[in-house]
Amino acid sequence: MKGKIIESSIRLFERRGFAETSIQDIVETLGVTKGTFYYYFSSKEELLMDIHLSYIDGLIARQEEILRDASAPASAKIRGIISLLIHDIQCQGLSAKVFFREMKILSEEKLRQIVPKRDLFRFNTEQLVKEGIKNGEFRPDLDPAIVTFGILGMANWSYQWFQPGGRLTEDAVSDMFVDMLLTGIAVK
Amino acid sequence: MKGKIIESSIRLFERRGFAETSIQDIVETLGVTKGTFYYYFSSKEELLMDIHLSYIDGLIARQEEILRDASAPASAKIRGIISLLIHDIQCQGLSAKVFFREMKILSEEKLRQIVPKRDLFRFNTEQLVKEGIKNGEFRPDLDPAIVTFGILGMANWSYQWFQPGGRLTEDAVSDMFVDMLLTGIAVK
Repeated sequence: MKGKIIESSIRLFERRGFAETSIQDIVETLGVTKGTFYYYFSSKEELLMDIHLSYIDGLIARQEEILRDASAPASAKIRGIISLLIHDIQCQGLSAKVFFREMKILSEEKLRQIVPKRDLFRFNTEQLVKEGIKNGEFRPDLDPAIVTFGILGMANWSYQWFQPGGRLTEDAVSDMFVDMLLTGIAVK
Repeated sequence: MKGKIIESSIRLFERRGFAETSIQDIVETLGVTKGTFYYYFSSKEELLMDIHLSYIDGLIARQEEILRDASAPASAKIRGIISLLIHDIQCQGLSAKVFFREMKILSEEKLRQIVPKRDLFRFNTEQLVKEGIKNGEFRPDLDPAIVTFGILGMANWSYQWFQPGGRLTEDAVSDMFVDMLLTGIAVK
């Protein structure tokens, strides 16, 4: 039931926004009582926090798996991270939308739990860019922080447009982004 | 006064979210009466619509100025568009944040006015990418739609992190993004 509450509230939050969705709306959709809701969550905010934490924790766990592979070049790991983010939009699209849009709703105290995790994901990516520069894969004249923001921007923005089941698969989009990023779009 | 209402409500919407900000909050911040608010806007939603329209109309007008320059190569126009988007974050940062975050709040009818404008901005950018492929500037093996999403993602994502007055100017960031985009980050 906990999973069902999370799933249907993500749907409602995405469609109407967090503030406009009441606990009543959530339980009505599921045909259960408010008591059932309060058995699992103390408040709507706690539920939102749960959605946020499981989204970002999942991303970090899979990122660390990619980074752990000592034999892969930095470019392959960058591809892994881009693909991970786009894949996530496909599988957890609504969750991602709610995550990006409803951050501001969380209290200061709750944000203090989320923001360092977002920063860690970015920091890990930046370390990887620096590693690639150090081992001669990437250009040393670019700023690693800005390169990282560029990579994350390309991939994260897909939550605005990527259509699972559309013209291009998530793999095709990831490959093209990595190709653009590594080689550039200009004719040599 | 209209401008002041817009300005201070953008600030409130950004900080608290649209749904959590009341007309009372807006007028209190300005020390005016609700009558003053209703003299300019029929509702909070109309005010949000006003913020959205002036944001996107401004972007499109400046984009069309960039595109009009027949003598510039496509790469220079792409640089112009990236710089325009990042510049906008600097100057209208809160407006941009409210724009991206509060889209869903608008009614279907109001969205029908906004969405085609967003699409036009993207469509203009994609046309430019196609033009660059046609005139031999850009690689013909990349998908223009995906390249466009990549460019807009890099630039638009800056609303999440770009700090006016920070370590790098908006010009430095734009230059680096264009450099990454055209030439790639890999060592040749």
